[in-house]
Amino acid sequence: MVSRLPLEEKVLADLRPTQAEKDHVCGLAQRVLERIRQSGKADGMVVGSIARHTWVSGDRDLDIFMLFDPSLPREELETQGLALARSIASSFTENYHEKYAEHPYINATIDDVDVDLVPCYNVDSAERIQSAVDRTPFHTRYITEKINGLIDDVLLLKRFTKAGGIYGSDQMTEGFSGYLCELLILHYGGFTPLLAAAAEWKPQAIIDIENHVAKEFDEPLVMIDPVDPKRNVAAAVSVDRMAEFVELARGYLESPSALFFELPKDSPITRDDLTTLIDRRGTSLFAITFPTPPYIEEIVVPQLKRSTSAICEHLARNGFSVHHAHYRMEREECMILIELLVSELPAIRSHLGPPVWNRVNAEKFRSKYRDSSLPGPYIDNGRYETEVPREFRKAADLIKSEGMLQISLGKHVRQSLVNGWQVHEGRECWSPVFSSFIAGFFNRCSPFVRHEKESGNHNS
Amino acid sequence: MVSRLPLEEKVLADLRPTQAEKDHVCGLAQRVLERIRQSGKADGMVVGSIARHTWVSGDRDLDIFMLFDPSLPREELETQGLALARSIASSFTENYHEKYAEHPYINATIDDVDVDLVPCYNVDSAERIQSAVDRTPFHTRYITEKINGLIDDVLLLKRFTKAGGIYGSDQMTEGFSGYLCELLILHYGGFTPLLAAAAEWKPQAIIDIENHVAKEFDEPLVMIDPVDPKRNVAAAVSVDRMAEFVELARGYLESPSALFFELPKDSPITRDDLTTLIDRRGTSLFAITFPTPPYIEEIVVPQLKRSTSAICEHLARNGFSVHHAHYRMEREECMILIELLVSELPAIRSHLGPPVWNRVNAEKFRSKYRDSSLPGPYIDNGRYETEVPREFRKAADLIKSEGMLQISLGKHVRQSLVNGWQVHEGRECWSPVFSSFIAGFFNRCSPFVRHEKESGNHNS
Repeated sequence: MVSRLPLEEKVLADLRPTQAEKDHVCGLAQRVLERIRQSGKADGMVVGSIARHTWVSGDRDLDIFMLFDPSLPREELETQGLALARSIASSFTENYHEKYAEHPYINATIDDVDVDLVPCYNVDSAERIQSAVDRTPFHTRYITEKINGLIDDVLLLKRFTKAGGIYGSDQMTEGFSGYLCELLILHYGGFTPLLAAAAEWKPQAIIDIENHVAKEFDEPLVMIDPVDPKRNVAAAVSVDRMAEFVELARGYLESPSALFFELPKDSPITRDDLTTLIDRRGTSLFAITFPTPPYIEEIVVPQLKRSTSAICEHLARNGFSVHHAHYRMEREECMILIELLVSELPAIRSHLGPPVWNRVNAEKFRSKYRDSSLPGPYIDNGRYETEVPREFRKAADLIKSEGMLQISLGKHVRQSLVNGWQVHEGRECWSPVFSSFIAGFFNRCSPFVRHEKESGNHNS
Repeated sequence: MVSRLPLEEKVLADLRPTQAEKDHVCGLAQRVLERIRQSGKADGMVVGSIARHTWVSGDRDLDIFMLFDPSLPREELETQGLALARSIASSFTENYHEKYAEHPYINATIDDVDVDLVPCYNVDSAERIQSAVDRTPFHTRYITEKINGLIDDVLLLKRFTKAGGIYGSDQMTEGFSGYLCELLILHYGGFTPLLAAAAEWKPQAIIDIENHVAKEFDEPLVMIDPVDPKRNVAAAVSVDRMAEFVELARGYLESPSALFFELPKDSPITRDDLTTLIDRRGTSLFAITFPTPPYIEEIVVPQLKRSTSAICEHLARNGFSVHHAHYRMEREECMILIELLVSELPAIRSHLGPPVWNRVNAEKFRSKYRDSSLPGPYIDNGRYETEVPREFRKAADLIKSEGMLQISLGKHVRQSLVNGWQVHEGRECWSPVFSSFIAGFFNRCSPFVRHEKESGNHNS
């Protein structure tokens, strides 16, 4: 039915799970479901991409929900649900532990498969859900019913977005979730029609498959959840990830290539290459590092993002113009990396005062500064202004100073900084664990441009 | 009638012309008027501050207008008027020459007095004037009729504004003309009531003595001309000169002192002091010098002002942040002096492109920059951006480059620069003729603050 490019067929051959993989994962799923059934306490249901047959070969994420009676009080659900999950997991392996999203659940590694055992309520319509997890079975039912014939398209899209670095609704990626990929394929009827449509997307694009939107959304991309008219499935997609998808779509349609499905290579920078690079650029590089707060990525990464903005504003307020800044959370340490155009400034700066016409404030300002040995106060465009000594002549001194704790860092980032942080300069910013992050920092380009550069489609 | 502070009486004793001065100047005026009468071609009239008895001792500016019949054609007026003026001047001295304001006139030095002989039309009402000079006799008649009893107040105000550096409606000062000072005293009824009112002035203040305003004005201070309802006598007053007057008024009312009447001392800086100063400030100083265009100050100074703004914008566009800039016209040379916070920048800069949604422009931008070995194009906030090599890493190279001729300099400044200009850096900016200008550049403070600092009313 669908005419597929040979290169896409070739990619698909690698993406489709093999029969052995399917047997292995589905066999395990059956055994877990059987245990739930035997318990007599809940219904078992496989959800996620394995249930929907939209999983990519090599994925090993088996999500099994345990649906309890909605009359069970919330506390009971957590106690009984967790007890059941624990008992089932322990009957397979000792390698399991409790995790926490909106509610607690059990994560176990069984026969090389990463299994989540999640208790939820078995409600009879999506309007009756009591928490976000209750919605997942409805997603699975919706997709499973309709996705027939489009599974290969979903696999291509997942790989296409993953290769572009825009797959995942996590805080670091701010990209496209698996469910969003499935809905996009459903709505547009395939991979190629989706790309043709996306090539013309503009922010505030709204897709409403069931034509039942019941709320206003201000995110750049809006995909109304078919099972919940008040939910935007694409809420996590940032405007930049959306623009990158648009760009990839245009690029692929214009000249399709296997490169669009190749996962980005990890290409760390060496300390010596960093030294040469900084030297050639003539910029000043600073890294702020501190122990990673003991919380999950979904908590820490947004705080890192906010902290990075706050530090950039703190630098800018003090006259240091930030060229580029980015952040990275690793297991032990976080890094905020900042490239400045200028890292040293003169001893003086201008300080703006009130308009002369505002007599009370004007006289306060003048009498506060008239005794200074520096020029001023003088009048510029009807306002007082004066010169004052610059508090921080060196950017390094500023980001080493206590004032860092006064700016708007996230709660847990701040708690970590209270115990101290390190400031590295120039080549000293390099460390093995951040060497890929630093390489990416200096190799900024959009996913499509990266494909173009890697394909050698350039002159220099 | 008026109660005067002892310090004001003391100042006035120096400001009032002595009897010998009066006899000398008025005697000369009578002799010139007599010659005009004898010619039978025009009526003579003394105008300006000498006619109004508002001249300050030491002033030697005698303005004598020759009023011709309005039926005389304009060309005839210029020819006959200039011929008469020339013949009268030559009967006193050989030291005279032609000058040009709106029309040509003769300037002569007679018995140590600077005499202007200006032809104009003898119209019978101010509405019938044919050019600005025809208005002057009306100003003189208006003031002479009403100023009686307030002459000392005018003298105080003239000296007060001169000491504050804000007397003069020329392009360099952008301050208060003599006629404006007279009208302010008339309107408020004296020096002290004027200061009390001015202390509360705000921009767009309107004073309309004859209550006959016939036009909208957008200058910060508006004094409707009593003889012309469509003219703002205070049009030359900049918002900063106005604010400085407001500040001086408040300061004097609060603690009157003779300092407010002391003319600013000329205090040049030495080359060595400049070296020390730049070193201490940590800034970068540049001077651009070029031969002064062969035109009068009223033509050249506004062009210098515009050129200075244009050069600052040119620097800012190239990433060099200007801390302070000013200009000076001297007889032989002009100088534009610029203090930068930073004079060297990295090898790269960011270059903003179109939004990705604008497909045509986005693809143009991407294909233009994708071959670069620098990072980018990348997407930031939905727009393309890329790094490009910085054209000028050193501010000095930028202001030495030909691009200076492409920016919006005034016509005559540009003509002068076409033949080349010099760029000086650091202590090399110093030269004897600009040493006072440079001192003032680094000693910026408002007139009142200068009084405060000079009176030792400060701690350090």
